[in-house]
Amino acid sequence: MADDALIVFTPSGRRGRFPLGTPVLQAARSLGVDIDSVCGGRGICGRCQVTQAEGEFAKHGIVSAADHLSAFGVVEEKYQRLRGLQDGRRLSCSTQILGDVVIDVPETSQVHRQVVRKAVEAVDIELDAAVRLHYVEVAEPDMHLPASDQRRLLDALEREWGLKDLACDLSLTQSLQPVLRKGGWAVTAAVYDEREVVAVWPGLKETVYGMAVDVGSTTVAAHLCDLSTGEVVASVGRMNPQIRFGEDLMSRVSYIMMNPGGEIDQTAAVREALNELAAQAAAEAGIEVTDILDVTLVGNPVMHHLLLGINPVELGGAPFALATDQATALRASELELKLNPGARAYVLPCIAGHVGADTAGVILAERPDQGETLTALVDVGTNAEIVLGNRERLLACSSPTGPAFEGAQICCGQRAAPGAIERVRIDPTTLEPRFRVIGCDLWSDQPGFAEATAQIGVTGICGSGIIEVLAELFLARVIKADGTIDGAMAAVSPRVRPEGVTFAYDLRLGAQQITIYQTDVRAIQLAKAALQAGIRLLMERMGVDAVQRIRLAGAFGSHIDVKYATVLGMLPDCELSNVSSAGNAAGTGARIALLDKRKRGEIEALVRRVEKIETAIEPNFQAQFVEAMAIPHRSAPYPHLAQVVDLPEPEAGGGRRERSGRRRRETQQ
Amino acid sequence: MADDALIVFTPSGRRGRFPLGTPVLQAARSLGVDIDSVCGGRGICGRCQVTQAEGEFAKHGIVSAADHLSAFGVVEEKYQRLRGLQDGRRLSCSTQILGDVVIDVPETSQVHRQVVRKAVEAVDIELDAAVRLHYVEVAEPDMHLPASDQRRLLDALEREWGLKDLACDLSLTQSLQPVLRKGGWAVTAAVYDEREVVAVWPGLKETVYGMAVDVGSTTVAAHLCDLSTGEVVASVGRMNPQIRFGEDLMSRVSYIMMNPGGEIDQTAAVREALNELAAQAAAEAGIEVTDILDVTLVGNPVMHHLLLGINPVELGGAPFALATDQATALRASELELKLNPGARAYVLPCIAGHVGADTAGVILAERPDQGETLTALVDVGTNAEIVLGNRERLLACSSPTGPAFEGAQICCGQRAAPGAIERVRIDPTTLEPRFRVIGCDLWSDQPGFAEATAQIGVTGICGSGIIEVLAELFLARVIKADGTIDGAMAAVSPRVRPEGVTFAYDLRLGAQQITIYQTDVRAIQLAKAALQAGIRLLMERMGVDAVQRIRLAGAFGSHIDVKYATVLGMLPDCELSNVSSAGNAAGTGARIALLDKRKRGEIEALVRRVEKIETAIEPNFQAQFVEAMAIPHRSAPYPHLAQVVDLPEPEAGGGRRERSGRRRRETQQ
Repeated sequence: MADDALIVFTPSGRRGRFPLGTPVLQAARSLGVDIDSVCGGRGICGRCQVTQAEGEFAKHGIVSAADHLSAFGVVEEKYQRLRGLQDGRRLSCSTQILGDVVIDVPETSQVHRQVVRKAVEAVDIELDAAVRLHYVEVAEPDMHLPASDQRRLLDALEREWGLKDLACDLSLTQSLQPVLRKGGWAVTAAVYDEREVVAVWPGLKETVYGMAVDVGSTTVAAHLCDLSTGEVVASVGRMNPQIRFGEDLMSRVSYIMMNPGGEIDQTAAVREALNELAAQAAAEAGIEVTDILDVTLVGNPVMHHLLLGINPVELGGAPFALATDQATALRASELELKLNPGARAYVLPCIAGHVGADTAGVILAERPDQGETLTALVDVGTNAEIVLGNRERLLACSSPTGPAFEGAQICCGQRAAPGAIERVRIDPTTLEPRFRVIGCDLWSDQPGFAEATAQIGVTGICGSGIIEVLAELFLARVIKADGTIDGAMAAVSPRVRPEGVTFAYDLRLGAQQITIYQTDVRAIQLAKAALQAGIRLLMERMGVDAVQRIRLAGAFGSHIDVKYATVLGMLPDCELSNVSSAGNAAGTGARIALLDKRKRGEIEALVRRVEKIETAIEPNFQAQFVEAMAIPHRSAPYPHLAQVVDLPEPEAGGGRRERSGRRRRETQQ
Repeated sequence: MADDALIVFTPSGRRGRFPLGTPVLQAARSLGVDIDSVCGGRGICGRCQVTQAEGEFAKHGIVSAADHLSAFGVVEEKYQRLRGLQDGRRLSCSTQILGDVVIDVPETSQVHRQVVRKAVEAVDIELDAAVRLHYVEVAEPDMHLPASDQRRLLDALEREWGLKDLACDLSLTQSLQPVLRKGGWAVTAAVYDEREVVAVWPGLKETVYGMAVDVGSTTVAAHLCDLSTGEVVASVGRMNPQIRFGEDLMSRVSYIMMNPGGEIDQTAAVREALNELAAQAAAEAGIEVTDILDVTLVGNPVMHHLLLGINPVELGGAPFALATDQATALRASELELKLNPGARAYVLPCIAGHVGADTAGVILAERPDQGETLTALVDVGTNAEIVLGNRERLLACSSPTGPAFEGAQICCGQRAAPGAIERVRIDPTTLEPRFRVIGCDLWSDQPGFAEATAQIGVTGICGSGIIEVLAELFLARVIKADGTIDGAMAAVSPRVRPEGVTFAYDLRLGAQQITIYQTDVRAIQLAKAALQAGIRLLMERMGVDAVQRIRLAGAFGSHIDVKYATVLGMLPDCELSNVSSAGNAAGTGARIALLDKRKRGEIEALVRRVEKIETAIEPNFQAQFVEAMAIPHRSAPYPHLAQVVDLPEPEAGGGRRERSGRRRRETQQ
């Protein structure tokens, strides 16, 4: 009988011969098979579970019989009794090889497991958190060998886990002695990036958490993630309290220019919000904030600077110089975050004065550099950040769209909230509208709508509603390609009526009347022209006249109907099925950087490759802007869009004119 | 005519040929000649001054003629006009080689210059500060190339100074933008350890400072040093405010055990004292505290732990486990020190539970490992730290001497302060004493003493005075080898008189009577026995019965007369000329680590080599202690001492007895 046996691991396919009696975990490690463990093979953490595949495996040349693994020993029995073990599962650390076996490593036992992703997310997330837990048994102090408690901890981490030359955070040194004694010299150490011990708990600590934060000018959103599974255990958000210093970025920067020390107040405000979010997320997940060991953050340049305690005034005027465009890795306490005292923070890099760490997050979430498809990433806010490229080249710019898309500067505009009109359809013959409001599933022409909305009311139009109503009015020929409301259409419906020297359209009559004025159309035209001009500037620089794929990032992107956005000419023409929402891609980017530390280096390298275009000084931006004022665009063709909707004919002089003879393919919902 | 020339630098002797027109500084750099510069060759800092040696140099084969260097150009003339240039001195950056020359680099122009040392200091200090200044001209921001301000600073530091991959302290990033603009894009950056930019000033900044601190249980002392010259520009000290929590270490640890949170108060107290010292030193030197960029600190284990914010309770009882025995490099702000926001701190390593970073400082100052001479380093305080060794081997221990040497536990004892008796002589025939007090240069038997001391009084005896009076009483046969005051001597002088069941000696009669009681002798015997037993324990471990050299560290060591200390048997026998004060060696060690960063790694490696002996569990310590209770010692011979003083004969049974026939060689001062 042989004194060794063949072991084959699936799905990796790694194989090797080991002496009989070798623990399965040890065999896996020496073959480089990815199996998790916190307790280091003591049979208490249960992370290293595997399943034996029994039977004859011709392709491996193996008969994997049940008795080729050792029976349950005391360690496994104890684990089974205390915590339960699923049928067929074994603790690989406590199971010995007694003959040829095929061992399956389930995904939940892998360190580098795939994280379940959302449908809108472009890339898979593989788990490789910066903070890892390691259970160790530390030698007790001995007056004959007066090594310090910290040295004996480091010795144990090197002996049991092969972690060499680890540094120690001061907060660790400060807390170490009572923890070692409370744990009876058995503790779990949190090691950051295989470099530094940042925290320690008595006994076995199985899970620590990280927080991925998107610091938006309006909203701060955080995902609390289990760093051992990648799972999001709580998602929380709140208004950015900096709003009291100004609604938008430039008013906050102005506040600082007017009020010396204002930057300190704004920094304190956002940091306090982060602490509140952390406390709220921890409470929702039923954990302590001190269980949070790592934080990643994204935000636009002004948010980024204020978060780091940098006065953002230089971003308020040309040449829009960033203080730093490097990623910032630091202690969370340096940002006054009240998490674990040893917690770390990682702030993604900014790209240019108007293209921030939020865009770096979008790039990390979408990875346009990994494919051939020429992709435009568009993150619409008060400024639109645009990235265009593929594996060959990446361009980025920011375009000053202003707040019109958020309902500001629109007479009946409002933020997206219950009562706001978000969907609009207009009959092209009668010009009669129907609409839906947030908080009610019924269309306004359906029975029961009045009752259903009696409580919330119909209070205004939010961003997506404005886009729809204007696009529908354009398709119904009420709004001309140059953006004027056509007074001639007053003959078709009394909803089109004079208003001073221009015309207006009454979307809703009665007490809570809602009207679209000429000034509203102009405001949206300016915003959408800025957006499309920015995209076209990058297309021009790239030497292309079409993009193959458009991804809309941010809350706005997930609410608008891409067809209407295209009709209005926010976006260049594109196969509509290739235009989609990327969800909160900036936040996803923060989550990727949180869960997979290798992505930090990747995004740092990637943003260095991005070519930045400053729209403010690009001579062609103004020309592009003027062309893009027309609906959908003065000169660019929209062949893909024309296959889906009945676009008015271009007018003489570059605009469009109604193609009266053409059959309307647009199907009203 | 050749188009290149030979240049020889003295004192280094480095030589090379360079094209005519090469600046002298550039030639020096490419030959690795050590010439300082802050401004990077712009002729404004004046650090790179050299002198031409004119004449024919046969050994170099050179005629170094005056016109072999370029004449003064505009840069040198401007420097000469604004700041003056000593006769014969040239700015090497602005002087070109026009023919063969011999160039002398004065020590003041060298980066790694020798620091002027004090007489008591054992080792030379070579300057190589961790913080270096670099003047750079930073590119202005350009919207076409939107690199951040920080990136352009780093680019300039790499381009002009070859400093690659520098990290940036967050405080630097926060302050950078206004400084760059104030300096018109010319700034001086402080770079720590060639790794990280920690501060930046507009324009040329020529000097920054560091502070070396000895955190003693009683006194905190700090030296403020110019990091470009190594010069001490201010020395300040104050009581350790922790004294309000307890006079000695153990009472402070007890306070913490009794008062939860007491460690936080003690940490705050010592950190506040450090801030006060920094402010005071800066004021004395006429600089800003923000000009302080680096701090090094030493202290005993309890001071070390409290400084770092570590609860020292584990040091209060066996097994005396240190939290950490590693050197601690961190931001000064982590210790709540209010210096430059980017300032760094370096805390020397502790060695064992009773042998602290102060002893590491003593070792660094004395470097017993660098010679063959078997040296004992003795730092006397409430505990005595003892290091014994040479290049072969280093041993260390701590011995619980208690506070008797500081005047505590002595009836008429007091701290060393005006009015305290510090010197004593006793006539061996009449037993009449004479003495000197601190604050008066006269002996008590000299005319005018009474008037001179009328103000300050004669208030007690300080540590060195106690040692002298006891040693003199022993030499006068009033105190016997076993420490008893010999009642038979009452027949010689009424100053020896009964006091209860024992005897006493009246050192001073009258209103402010000062008496030596039997209990005083016992207290000093216990202290000195602990000290010598500690030294002998190390000697025994080392396998030697004599030491070749003794260095006494600390304030006590610089005040006591080594002869009397040896007579009393504090120290083993040694050639008295080889017993000397090392001054505040712990503080000197902190200063060395401050001025020469390479010494930090050296002391870290060195303390790992030290073999630690824990006196509390050494079986032989008690036996050594009993032997050392006798004066000077029960069994060990004192041949070197016997050549200098008339030692009483050993008594039968191991003590000593008066050798009545021997002529007294002791010369009374």
